[in-house]
Amino acid sequence: MSKQQRLALAGIFRQLPFTIAGDPAEQRAAMEAALTAIPLPGDVTTTPGELGGVPVLTIDVDGVDSSKVLVHFHGGVYVLGSARAGAGLAAALGRHAGVRVISVDYRLAPEHPYPAAIDDALAVYRAVLEQIPSSQIALSGESAGGGLVAALLLRLKELGLPLPASSVTLSLWVDLTLSGQSMSSKASIDPSVLTPRGLRIRVPDYLGGMDPATPDISPIFADFSGLPPMLIQVGSHEILLDDAVRLAAQAAAHDVEVTLQVTPEVPHVFQTFAAVLDEGKAALRGAGAFLRTHFEEKK
Amino acid sequence: MSKQQRLALAGIFRQLPFTIAGDPAEQRAAMEAALTAIPLPGDVTTTPGELGGVPVLTIDVDGVDSSKVLVHFHGGVYVLGSARAGAGLAAALGRHAGVRVISVDYRLAPEHPYPAAIDDALAVYRAVLEQIPSSQIALSGESAGGGLVAALLLRLKELGLPLPASSVTLSLWVDLTLSGQSMSSKASIDPSVLTPRGLRIRVPDYLGGMDPATPDISPIFADFSGLPPMLIQVGSHEILLDDAVRLAAQAAAHDVEVTLQVTPEVPHVFQTFAAVLDEGKAALRGAGAFLRTHFEEKK
Repeated sequence: MSKQQRLALAGIFRQLPFTIAGDPAEQRAAMEAALTAIPLPGDVTTTPGELGGVPVLTIDVDGVDSSKVLVHFHGGVYVLGSARAGAGLAAALGRHAGVRVISVDYRLAPEHPYPAAIDDALAVYRAVLEQIPSSQIALSGESAGGGLVAALLLRLKELGLPLPASSVTLSLWVDLTLSGQSMSSKASIDPSVLTPRGLRIRVPDYLGGMDPATPDISPIFADFSGLPPMLIQVGSHEILLDDAVRLAAQAAAHDVEVTLQVTPEVPHVFQTFAAVLDEGKAALRGAGAFLRTHFEEKK
Repeated sequence: MSKQQRLALAGIFRQLPFTIAGDPAEQRAAMEAALTAIPLPGDVTTTPGELGGVPVLTIDVDGVDSSKVLVHFHGGVYVLGSARAGAGLAAALGRHAGVRVISVDYRLAPEHPYPAAIDDALAVYRAVLEQIPSSQIALSGESAGGGLVAALLLRLKELGLPLPASSVTLSLWVDLTLSGQSMSSKASIDPSVLTPRGLRIRVPDYLGGMDPATPDISPIFADFSGLPPMLIQVGSHEILLDDAVRLAAQAAAHDVEVTLQVTPEVPHVFQTFAAVLDEGKAALRGAGAFLRTHFEEKK
């Protein structure tokens, strides 16, 4: 079945009613409508709130352990997306890990360029840290949200703050210089709304005049030594494939425990479509197992 | 405990009574003596035999499923090592996967340079294939044996033969041009007998006058498309770290299902020391789970 599933999924992607290249306000509304069209499962409760002055959405699947928290960052090229729009995927991660999710509504560019999103990520992490020991916190994020996970880890290390137990990132975006080979080699087969042209349009929104090779804007250029275990998942039909591969290589060179899982012939953040894609289910199971193992080890 | 375990292990490595740089006949005897000094667990049975005209060692842990087979290739820079010397590690893989192991005593260089080892690997695989469907066969190997796994997969693809369910490689050696950055960046912290100098001495033995960049001598230069799921495990304190990282990158670019697991601060084929190293145990558990999943999927 899976080949059919993958073809069907590519069709769904090609019909998504938004683009990252258009006017942010319009595209935000279109993305929000598309991603919230499918209702959350009946056993998921979402509670809007605020932590460290930043709006968050707390997501609980019935029966999870709320003494452990996955701090999650949604995708959307730092310009689009919201915790609510990304709640389905975040809830699935929480379900598989068996823990509460706190999804962060960090400020978006171009209104709020770098480092606003990282500042918000840090403020929420500090607030969670007041309630829960770092050993019972993990980080997760998809696409630009995965980039935020990496940037937050670097910031925590710089500040000497307690590091989380582990991190899981899905199709992370960690090279705003767009220098990966897959940016061209995979462009013709990647069905995602995330196109090289779209990224080139959106990058300056986030940079706010900074050099895109700044390590916490493009963590592939950062020093990862001392960071906690990382699981990096990516599809092989992604222009962002090399972001994942190069981050794993960089982390490995710096003696970080890193697992890279490449799923063949699937597109950007394919885990969103786990309901209709076996590979998505398998990846979420793998992410859950990884998070559980590292919570357990740090107990 | 693990930091102490790692330091103890580095000490063990530094005292190993053989070197890859010396006279092959002497070093073979020393390596054999060192690796067979620890007796196999009481529930392991080894049976010497022959398959496809090649000597093999069949390794069964009590209770494993002998209808599934892991065809295993020992390490030793294509010049040293034997199925018997590598039986402890191969048995551990069979135990965690719950299957029979057939470890191949392929011909060694310099007496038998490339492609003798690959020819022997192929002959054994063909013979196993006459008894067991390819869906119930997997491949494994450590160090040069991991390179043989990759070379055999490429040969099977070229010949249009049925491919195994999956492969697991530990600290594989797949670049005989020795061009990885870790060849220098990790040299001072890698405690293994596998040194850049030793490798430079041994490479010509295997090449037999061939170009080291030949794809089935150095599979990092090969086309992996169409190959079955691969698990690649490596330690971050290895001069061969980049062999693993680059093979994973190459397989990912070619749409192969690939998982790269990097374990920090451990040396070459650290799984050999699972009895005294938590990371070794964890890696073997991961390898077993990977092999089981892919046998199951192909059923």
